[in-house]
Amino acid sequence: MTFLQGLKADAYEVVVISPRNYFLYTPLLPASATGAVEDRSIVEPVRKQLKSKGFTYLQAEARHIHAGDRKISCVGVASAGSGNVCEFELEYDYLVNAVGSVPNTFGTPGVEEHATFFKEVTHATALRRQVAQALERASLPGTPVEEARELLTFAIVGGGPTGVELAGELYDLLKEDVAKEYPEELMSLLKVVIVELQDHILSMYDRKISEYATAEFKKRAGRGNFEVCLNSRVVAVEEGRLRIADMDSGGERAIPFGACVWSTGIKMHPLCEGLKEELCADDAESCPANVRSLATDKAMRVRGRLAGGRIFALGDCATVERPKSLEAAKRIFCGGGGGRGGGPRGGGGRGGGGPPRG
Amino acid sequence: MTFLQGLKADAYEVVVISPRNYFLYTPLLPASATGAVEDRSIVEPVRKQLKSKGFTYLQAEARHIHAGDRKISCVGVASAGSGNVCEFELEYDYLVNAVGSVPNTFGTPGVEEHATFFKEVTHATALRRQVAQALERASLPGTPVEEARELLTFAIVGGGPTGVELAGELYDLLKEDVAKEYPEELMSLLKVVIVELQDHILSMYDRKISEYATAEFKKRAGRGNFEVCLNSRVVAVEEGRLRIADMDSGGERAIPFGACVWSTGIKMHPLCEGLKEELCADDAESCPANVRSLATDKAMRVRGRLAGGRIFALGDCATVERPKSLEAAKRIFCGGGGGRGGGPRGGGGRGGGGPPRG
Repeated sequence: MTFLQGLKADAYEVVVISPRNYFLYTPLLPASATGAVEDRSIVEPVRKQLKSKGFTYLQAEARHIHAGDRKISCVGVASAGSGNVCEFELEYDYLVNAVGSVPNTFGTPGVEEHATFFKEVTHATALRRQVAQALERASLPGTPVEEARELLTFAIVGGGPTGVELAGELYDLLKEDVAKEYPEELMSLLKVVIVELQDHILSMYDRKISEYATAEFKKRAGRGNFEVCLNSRVVAVEEGRLRIADMDSGGERAIPFGACVWSTGIKMHPLCEGLKEELCADDAESCPANVRSLATDKAMRVRGRLAGGRIFALGDCATVERPKSLEAAKRIFCGGGGGRGGGPRGGGGRGGGGPPRG
Repeated sequence: MTFLQGLKADAYEVVVISPRNYFLYTPLLPASATGAVEDRSIVEPVRKQLKSKGFTYLQAEARHIHAGDRKISCVGVASAGSGNVCEFELEYDYLVNAVGSVPNTFGTPGVEEHATFFKEVTHATALRRQVAQALERASLPGTPVEEARELLTFAIVGGGPTGVELAGELYDLLKEDVAKEYPEELMSLLKVVIVELQDHILSMYDRKISEYATAEFKKRAGRGNFEVCLNSRVVAVEEGRLRIADMDSGGERAIPFGACVWSTGIKMHPLCEGLKEELCADDAESCPANVRSLATDKAMRVRGRLAGGRIFALGDCATVERPKSLEAAKRIFCGGGGGRGGGPRGGGGRGGGGPPRG
């Protein structure tokens, strides 16, 4: 949106294609899941803004980029009650790819069926409803204590920023608000569980932050209502049950849950995968190894002969070329080097550099 | 809720059973469907209020009242992802029945499948989404004009207060807000259609109000984007299509739609039907003819030997005994009469007297 706001209205004919007609500020999604902030506070409708600039918005999903023909194939949203699929093609002079990434299940069985991803407003809403229903159900006179305990266990797979923040929000919700509205007997049954593959949470941040968070969470776990399972790999997600394996001993155990959120990593959007394949098949040199998104130059132009400098990539879906700091330092202080220009000031920015959320 | 707020907290052990853990102010539902007011403005969570009074709330549906045994059978809400049904029974000393009424399809085929009822927040949300999706879909380059016209026709069956208000809100939304966000070409394709069985709308109100509204709607219809089909019976609701018959000529025609709301009448809640059956089988005298809800005395006690003065009924589900005004006038002015006490001050109130919404 920031990029679009900066575009001169009369200089370009702009068409925006997205299945979502709003911009979503994902960092507040955990707070929206617990009702701490309202959904409307974290979304911004794009239609009015775009129309006021004379731009066109189409609610559709780009399915395939034909880089050679400078065309994209799109599929429109299905209208309610109609099974019709609306397909169309659009030609472009320049294409900006900012589709982000998609959740990664790492092939774990049952994730799609029994867990909730956590990237969209609908996910936060679904979780909010699941938590509320679990609380209601657990309060009924017909519900045995053991079933109530299972219903009131909320599992979060992934100790990254999203998982940790969500765990904190959920814990606050349960400790503070639930006590005011639900029977007190439920309080001792409530539990938030974080499952993390590594031996510490927030591993993408500085070691100190990670250590502090891990210690803090362990302290809370001591008080009950909280558990952190480190060194734990999810073997499968089943209906109402998570099966995890200890990475050291290999021993398996089950965690029954009332709701389970899967927030443990992202992978390339299928649109980018398709494009990358086409570009690499045509020109293998433009495909650097170890880059799990679209490789771009410093101006965010996607590399590759077929892209022709007309395809750009922004955000999660791009890996922007950045000169190595060490080389740059050498050039500055030793006068050596001779790499391509730019220096330390050229890289950085908000490309694909930051830690991935999720 | 007003009744509960007035109850002394320490005098009774109160259990509230409802599938909805909030109170819904239905008169603002049409405005919520178009986003003119927010959902949260028309609902009020009941849990905190009830708990602060020491009352118990159970999110469950009362399925059957065993008047003879003073028991009710309930079914709890199913928690997400769990197919388990939670059934339980509750005994009561006194029972207050305030379940309202349910929509009436009058046996019209296809209503449940292809139309939206309009009594719950979920209905308003569904309609809002349908309208938004129809607009998005109609804006796509792949959508032919004729399909866009069908998508942008919004049909409302029922010219009662709900239908009329919803039509007005929808019309305002389409005329005022849509123009700011969607392509101008769509404006001429937009249409709100009201289908009404009688020859005028708002027939439950004073004739003057009804005539004014009918004339006003006909005026708007002249300007396009609006149509009122009077004297029209819905033969069937099909996918994206309403089949209606003219009551005079018997001729049929089809109205294709992008969304259809069914707001044409209510019928007794199944819980009340069951209770009425039990009471009438036991004591036929307590079942006055022509009463399409639970008959009660002036104190809202449900009539019938088995009810034993321990079952009360409030709101839409009750028909409260009211002395005939003429008889009351006779007693007052002529001193005659001799009917049971109460007089004109005894009746009235907010029983089953007002026009049914819907």
